[in-house]
Amino acid sequence: MDRLQIEILLSAVSSGDTSVEDALNKLRHLPFEDIGFAKVDHHRALRTGMPETIFAMGKSPEQVAAIFARMAAAGSNVLATRADSAAYEKVAEVEPRAIYHSTARAITLEQSAPVRGKGVVAVVCAGTSDLPVAEEAAITARMMGNDVELIADVGVAGIHRLLAQRDALLAARVLIVCAGMEGALPTAVAGMVRTPVIAVPTSVGYGASFGGVAALLGMLNSCAPNVSVVNIDNGFGAASVASLINHLD
Amino acid sequence: MDRLQIEILLSAVSSGDTSVEDALNKLRHLPFEDIGFAKVDHHRALRTGMPETIFAMGKSPEQVAAIFARMAAAGSNVLATRADSAAYEKVAEVEPRAIYHSTARAITLEQSAPVRGKGVVAVVCAGTSDLPVAEEAAITARMMGNDVELIADVGVAGIHRLLAQRDALLAARVLIVCAGMEGALPTAVAGMVRTPVIAVPTSVGYGASFGGVAALLGMLNSCAPNVSVVNIDNGFGAASVASLINHLD
Amino acid sequence: MDRLQIEILLSAVSSGDTSVEDALNKLRHLPFEDIGFAKVDHHRALRTGMPETIFAMGKSPEQVAAIFARMAAAGSNVLATRADSAAYEKVAEVEPRAIYHSTARAITLEQSAPVRGKGVVAVVCAGTSDLPVAEEAAITARMMGNDVELIADVGVAGIHRLLAQRDALLAARVLIVCAGMEGALPTAVAGMVRTPVIAVPTSVGYGASFGGVAALLGMLNSCAPNVSVVNIDNGFGAASVASLINHLD
Amino acid sequence: MDRLQIEILLSAVSSGDTSVEDALNKLRHLPFEDIGFAKVDHHRALRTGMPETIFAMGKSPEQVAAIFARMAAAGSNVLATRADSAAYEKVAEVEPRAIYHSTARAITLEQSAPVRGKGVVAVVCAGTSDLPVAEEAAITARMMGNDVELIADVGVAGIHRLLAQRDALLAARVLIVCAGMEGALPTAVAGMVRTPVIAVPTSVGYGASFGGVAALLGMLNSCAPNVSVVNIDNGFGAASVASLINHLD
Amino acid sequence: MDRLQIEILLSAVSSGDTSVEDALNKLRHLPFEDIGFAKVDHHRALRTGMPETIFAMGKSPEQVAAIFARMAAAGSNVLATRADSAAYEKVAEVEPRAIYHSTARAITLEQSAPVRGKGVVAVVCAGTSDLPVAEEAAITARMMGNDVELIADVGVAGIHRLLAQRDALLAARVLIVCAGMEGALPTAVAGMVRTPVIAVPTSVGYGASFGGVAALLGMLNSCAPNVSVVNIDNGFGAASVASLINHLD
Amino acid sequence: MDRLQIEILLSAVSSGDTSVEDALNKLRHLPFEDIGFAKVDHHRALRTGMPETIFAMGKSPEQVAAIFARMAAAGSNVLATRADSAAYEKVAEVEPRAIYHSTARAITLEQSAPVRGKGVVAVVCAGTSDLPVAEEAAITARMMGNDVELIADVGVAGIHRLLAQRDALLAARVLIVCAGMEGALPTAVAGMVRTPVIAVPTSVGYGASFGGVAALLGMLNSCAPNVSVVNIDNGFGAASVASLINHLD
Amino acid sequence: MDRLQIEILLSAVSSGDTSVEDALNKLRHLPFEDIGFAKVDHHRALRTGMPETIFAMGKSPEQVAAIFARMAAAGSNVLATRADSAAYEKVAEVEPRAIYHSTARAITLEQSAPVRGKGVVAVVCAGTSDLPVAEEAAITARMMGNDVELIADVGVAGIHRLLAQRDALLAARVLIVCAGMEGALPTAVAGMVRTPVIAVPTSVGYGASFGGVAALLGMLNSCAPNVSVVNIDNGFGAASVASLINHLD
Amino acid sequence: MDRLQIEILLSAVSSGDTSVEDALNKLRHLPFEDIGFAKVDHHRALRTGMPETIFAMGKSPEQVAAIFARMAAAGSNVLATRADSAAYEKVAEVEPRAIYHSTARAITLEQSAPVRGKGVVAVVCAGTSDLPVAEEAAITARMMGNDVELIADVGVAGIHRLLAQRDALLAARVLIVCAGMEGALPTAVAGMVRTPVIAVPTSVGYGASFGGVAALLGMLNSCAPNVSVVNIDNGFGAASVASLINHLD
Repeated sequence: MDRLQIEILLSAVSSGDTSVEDALNKLRHLPFEDIGFAKVDHHRALRTGMPETIFAMGKSPEQVAAIFARMAAAGSNVLATRADSAAYEKVAEVEPRAIYHSTARAITLEQSAPVRGKGVVAVVCAGTSDLPVAEEAAITARMMGNDVELIADVGVAGIHRLLAQRDALLAARVLIVCAGMEGALPTAVAGMVRTPVIAVPTSVGYGASFGGVAALLGMLNSCAPNVSVVNIDNGFGAASVASLINHLD
Repeated sequence: MDRLQIEILLSAVSSGDTSVEDALNKLRHLPFEDIGFAKVDHHRALRTGMPETIFAMGKSPEQVAAIFARMAAAGSNVLATRADSAAYEKVAEVEPRAIYHSTARAITLEQSAPVRGKGVVAVVCAGTSDLPVAEEAAITARMMGNDVELIADVGVAGIHRLLAQRDALLAARVLIVCAGMEGALPTAVAGMVRTPVIAVPTSVGYGASFGGVAALLGMLNSCAPNVSVVNIDNGFGAASVASLINHLD
Repeated sequence: MDRLQIEILLSAVSSGDTSVEDALNKLRHLPFEDIGFAKVDHHRALRTGMPETIFAMGKSPEQVAAIFARMAAAGSNVLATRADSAAYEKVAEVEPRAIYHSTARAITLEQSAPVRGKGVVAVVCAGTSDLPVAEEAAITARMMGNDVELIADVGVAGIHRLLAQRDALLAARVLIVCAGMEGALPTAVAGMVRTPVIAVPTSVGYGASFGGVAALLGMLNSCAPNVSVVNIDNGFGAASVASLINHLD
Repeated sequence: MDRLQIEILLSAVSSGDTSVEDALNKLRHLPFEDIGFAKVDHHRALRTGMPETIFAMGKSPEQVAAIFARMAAAGSNVLATRADSAAYEKVAEVEPRAIYHSTARAITLEQSAPVRGKGVVAVVCAGTSDLPVAEEAAITARMMGNDVELIADVGVAGIHRLLAQRDALLAARVLIVCAGMEGALPTAVAGMVRTPVIAVPTSVGYGASFGGVAALLGMLNSCAPNVSVVNIDNGFGAASVASLINHLD
Repeated sequence: MDRLQIEILLSAVSSGDTSVEDALNKLRHLPFEDIGFAKVDHHRALRTGMPETIFAMGKSPEQVAAIFARMAAAGSNVLATRADSAAYEKVAEVEPRAIYHSTARAITLEQSAPVRGKGVVAVVCAGTSDLPVAEEAAITARMMGNDVELIADVGVAGIHRLLAQRDALLAARVLIVCAGMEGALPTAVAGMVRTPVIAVPTSVGYGASFGGVAALLGMLNSCAPNVSVVNIDNGFGAASVASLINHLD
Repeated sequence: MDRLQIEILLSAVSSGDTSVEDALNKLRHLPFEDIGFAKVDHHRALRTGMPETIFAMGKSPEQVAAIFARMAAAGSNVLATRADSAAYEKVAEVEPRAIYHSTARAITLEQSAPVRGKGVVAVVCAGTSDLPVAEEAAITARMMGNDVELIADVGVAGIHRLLAQRDALLAARVLIVCAGMEGALPTAVAGMVRTPVIAVPTSVGYGASFGGVAALLGMLNSCAPNVSVVNIDNGFGAASVASLINHLD
Repeated sequence: MDRLQIEILLSAVSSGDTSVEDALNKLRHLPFEDIGFAKVDHHRALRTGMPETIFAMGKSPEQVAAIFARMAAAGSNVLATRADSAAYEKVAEVEPRAIYHSTARAITLEQSAPVRGKGVVAVVCAGTSDLPVAEEAAITARMMGNDVELIADVGVAGIHRLLAQRDALLAARVLIVCAGMEGALPTAVAGMVRTPVIAVPTSVGYGASFGGVAALLGMLNSCAPNVSVVNIDNGFGAASVASLINHLD
Repeated sequence: MDRLQIEILLSAVSSGDTSVEDALNKLRHLPFEDIGFAKVDHHRALRTGMPETIFAMGKSPEQVAAIFARMAAAGSNVLATRADSAAYEKVAEVEPRAIYHSTARAITLEQSAPVRGKGVVAVVCAGTSDLPVAEEAAITARMMGNDVELIADVGVAGIHRLLAQRDALLAARVLIVCAGMEGALPTAVAGMVRTPVIAVPTSVGYGASFGGVAALLGMLNSCAPNVSVVNIDNGFGAASVASLINHLD
């Protein structure tokens, strides 16, 4: 309810078309309905094709399937992240069109085309161990209407392979760079481009990697000025930020 | 040296206009001269008005002044961050046009107009304690060619003041949100907009704030999907990322 | 044994009704019997209906059932927290009246009505993941004689939903606010009320949430002056403190 | 602006006493003016005598004095915490009635009597090193209208001294217990009473006390169910929570 | 090889009974054979009845049984700590006299009486959760020839129960105090006695207990001057130190 | 007040020599006066020559001097630890007999001979950097009536120097071993003796020594079964424990 | 492609033997192909017998077997580390010549003799718990062409056993020393030799060993100047460094 | 005392030239004198020109000067690290030949030529902030007889500058790479060479660099197999290890 609607309502009261009681009822929830992001968001998601998302970790397969079905029935595109195959099996029973992406541990359903971003979102990672996070980012970005290029198997200890991808890196409008261990890849990539780099530390490693903390600290301390960071293993969040940037006019 | 230049060179060798030795000399440094960001960067900074920057912390006033003078003489716009008044006094001796921003602890010199970004970069912070970091971000963003709006004195514990700034927040193309203590402001702001939010934890606080670690963790764990994070007190880095986003076509 | 009893005893010695030896025997354990919280506590629990509690985590189902049965036989109300369904099955065998609350992982038995608190204890949490801790707090508070209102699904990233609960929040005499991830909800709630807020960090999250540490630090650094904090996932402790406050005359 | 006021306004529009434009102007800021804590708080502080507070750490003596003078001129009671003697000297120049409490590092000005709490707030600490935090809590609680009893020099390693204070502990309606080092005092005190205990870890100690972290962890892990915790050295926050509890009807 | 043996050898060389070459051979390994703790230790263990010990955690049941059997065959008393029932079953097959202590997770075999310590080693703990560590300490101390008194179910939050044990605490020559959670019990006990207290943090707890770190820090920061500390859950180590002290003449 | 005294009092009441009121007055504080460590401690300190101690860190020179003078006037031996030369100068003004030990940062006054321990307390450290802590331990132990041998300049990286001290190490009844950096010396020493070793981590080091944490962890994880640990830099505490052990009959 | 090859190519263009187009094609990838470690590495591995390696942890048995088979087919020596027996079974199906080293958790295949190092690599560890890491280092070093001597069962708490190995330690050209718990062994060994010591912290321990962190910190703080450190449990990395040193001419 | 000396002694006993008593006296200290590294080290340092070193941090200028003078008088080369200009001034008074290296904070005196290493030790760092540590490493390595090449101003965010140094990197026999912030440089360098890389984290940075911890963790988690690590800021240690490697035949 925006100011125009309030003006119309007040005019109706002024003219006697609406009683004071009715107007009062409409206005009483105003403090928050006017703010009203939630409902707008709901409508907007349907209109723009942005997916509704489910963070499946810590939910039972039945719970995931129930939420998935409800969202699908509302006509939304749906994305479930951190979902294992058991969750997918339950989802598939209620929504056979759902697709499982096993490396990314994601379940998707696309019922309408999302609004397209302007450029390419490149997702970069060092090796096969980082692929689950990188794939989660890639699938999320695709579900949000972005062209995605996945560049795997480049690393700081083999600079030549990274340099070989220079054209692809420069062609992207936004970059997502996933790395575990020492987490240096985002800095190296960021030094080669002039676009925003979203760094995603992964929990890949052992010993003093402390479940991704070493990579996280490395990325936060990046000497490149075009790097910002999201939580460990948060491929979804990185893709959300990257998609927002890529949809800027 | 791009492919066109190599093609020309090879043609010259083929035609005999260039000797094998001369071509070899030109090509021998190819692996890195071709990549050649450094020189291009230098030229580009001058052409676009992007500032050359000095991180003054840990440098003597004399060192800061010497670097500042050299950059100024090259015609560049110059930005020194984390500079105290002693550093500024030395800089002012060699470059009287330099301006000191005491809250931001920044020294600036603008000799040419930078390329303008498309929208507004809003810099948000909770209180006076976070102002040094917020001002560093604001001045950096301005030096990089962005319209900047600084919104101070809003906080999570006083939601109404935050809501009062709703229009200003929605008007920005990118947001930088600085917060110390519990670091919850970026999440609250991010929930009110649909634009990228760069979160900057500050070292403001005491006890279990651990010099900004509490705020950093809060921001990394944000439940809002449009938040990415930079290092503690890194107003400069946040502004660099925000400016890149704001300059995207 | 209070001073009156000592006075009576001394009078009996003075009058010869009690021998020195007998008085000595009665007094020898005085240093701790006089303090005697334990026994009084026991009587008081029965008289006021305060539950005896079992922390079931780390105990075998058999152990939980044995303790539960003994407390029930003594006429007490009984509350077992952190109890899985296996523990409940063993308890149900020995005490069929026991009720299992699966989300809260709690087993309860109410044999007498507890003394009522004065107002409402509101338990607030952000989402379904925090519900186990919030429900533990709610059930504990109810067992301790408080009216409880559970307000779920409000969060800092969606301020409008929080504002919509403003009346319910203002109506409570004490609030318990549970949150994982960045743990900002207690601060946002505390800014809307003038009553004490007991903050409970939950272990919900991943990566840099460090099992609830990010939320804990956020709450300890709250800029709201009406927040105090209990241990991660300690819904029981928060409810105990809240109940004490709510029972103050 | 509550519903009654909205009803009156709507009636005025209905009757023509107020134009649509005027009503629109009054309603347009409704979403936040209705929430309007800030203004109410301001009025309420004056009415109830609650002090306006300044966190002086990190502010210059001139800044502290300027804020202090402004608050004093508004008729408020004023409390500045973490203020050194240099700050006090500047404050005394602009407000000679201000009093400095050197151990507590607090400056106070009381212009009107605050609304009284119902019982006594007891502030307990182990030794002279914890006194600055305990005194900050005591002065804050007094400024907020509470009778305060300060019990110093009791510790876990000398249980008899603690037991000697049993009557005073039992007489309090709320307790604030400050402790550094191993932070065990709140648990020991909490075991002796049936009232809420606000535990304040202090940064007193060395080595593995880690600036108060050992005490903080000890308090968070208290086995007593009536303990909640605030940030390290946060005597002000503990007193704020205690005062709120003590003012409950 | 002690000095006497060297003297005899030199005399033999002097008298010609031993050639220079033979003496040289015997002496060449002197630097370490003379130090020779290992062999002496072996003999001493047999002579004094000190047990040979096996740290079973991380070893397979078969490995534990094999080592146990070898030590038993050598006539030694044997103590295996951190042994589960599977390990005991394998040990019992090869050494039917072995006894399993399930709470302490220890396997013992006593073939000869150890040299007796002078006084009593008291082992104190707060509750049933700390019993495994306390029992490990108690059994270890008994195997090393000490009279042991186990005092369970005393805690800092119930001082009266602790005071009730005052005589038993004062009667001990050395105390071992085990506690998890906030780890305050050793300090409280140490304040009641004038004997050395060996503090053992246990991993009992959840959330901010961090697997015993909170208790460890609390004990290291004890304000009592008669407390020293061993590793988390190290009941064996505490008993070893206590036994050494109790065997001092 | 022991049982005998209570018996006498009761007899006096029985005989009428003491009125009920008087007896009641004497008994009313019984719960803690009977425990009465404090007063006994006071008397005992004078009788046994145990020093009263002042932890000077964080106290002003004037405060240290005032406490020192009061203790000296009571006839006690006095030990002030962590005292700088400024503190000593103030102490010397009020008590000229006081002696300053600059390396140990300790001030001592011995007015009567303490009760002697049975054997030698050896204090071992690696190098000059650890000497302040080792000297604090040595002086404390001497003030408590122990023969002390200080063995400096032995380290794990130079085993031969350590072995050269083998006789001195074996001659001690208790050992205190101070070490910073990697903190391995206590383990190496403990492997050479069969007596209790009190390990003191020192804050000597840089970088990943984390102010003594590396040494502390090393000592807590010692594979030698005769090591227990005190807080970082806590030479006083180590000496207190060692003295207690050395005074055991 | 080295400079000689470029010179030849340019000569061919000059002479007309190669067209400009063909030369351009060959040169276009020059920036990275010239650096070209990857391909050279591949060739070099075959020529020198250096093993191709697989980090099996986190890979399925099928994945390990597939990679192993591909490398074996290329004629390479192959080393898989962190491989459990399930992985080996799958590998053995596709490559029956593969050998499983169960303690080291390594699978090896040697098809050609690697270039030999100059001296002996000694691998030292304290006990059976550290053997998996030590064996991983030993097998890796052997696969890389080094003579390896494994010295187990020496420790800091039993210096004599360490001294008994003095000759073997002095005979090595490089040493790898693995230790968990307090991690002091590398320092003790380094003090006995004048050769580089690669220290490997192991995750052996419990409680305050924090999964190898205590050992890691101990090694980083070593007072011996010939120690450098690798990640926790990184036997492979230590052997790689040691082998490089041992192959230096 | 080596075996030859023992043989001579035994022969003298055999021949009667030495009495048994005299031989016994000479042999009694054998266990450590025979090991005797210390004295040999002393002689060896003089013979080989290896410097005696002083860690000046935490020592007074007078102490540094006194130790320096004593070592200089013994004819040794001397190296003092972590020495400020005040220390140098005192040293210069007693030893005018001493040279101060202000960036490296080192004082040197070379009286004889050290034994030369075989190749070049390259010291690499990213920027001016890391120079103090890099220079300490360079000067240490030079004092130990190594040819040193210092390569500054290369970083991971500017790969082209690093590639430009490829020849210099490949020419070194050992590399020392110093880096603060994210600490990624050693990995990038290690990927370009086949020689051992000693990584030195520096304390350069702010916020989440935690005084060098981020760089340290990055280096420990390096994915390059030729990297080992020393303590934060430990340029001296890195040079010692590098020199040992460079002196291997």
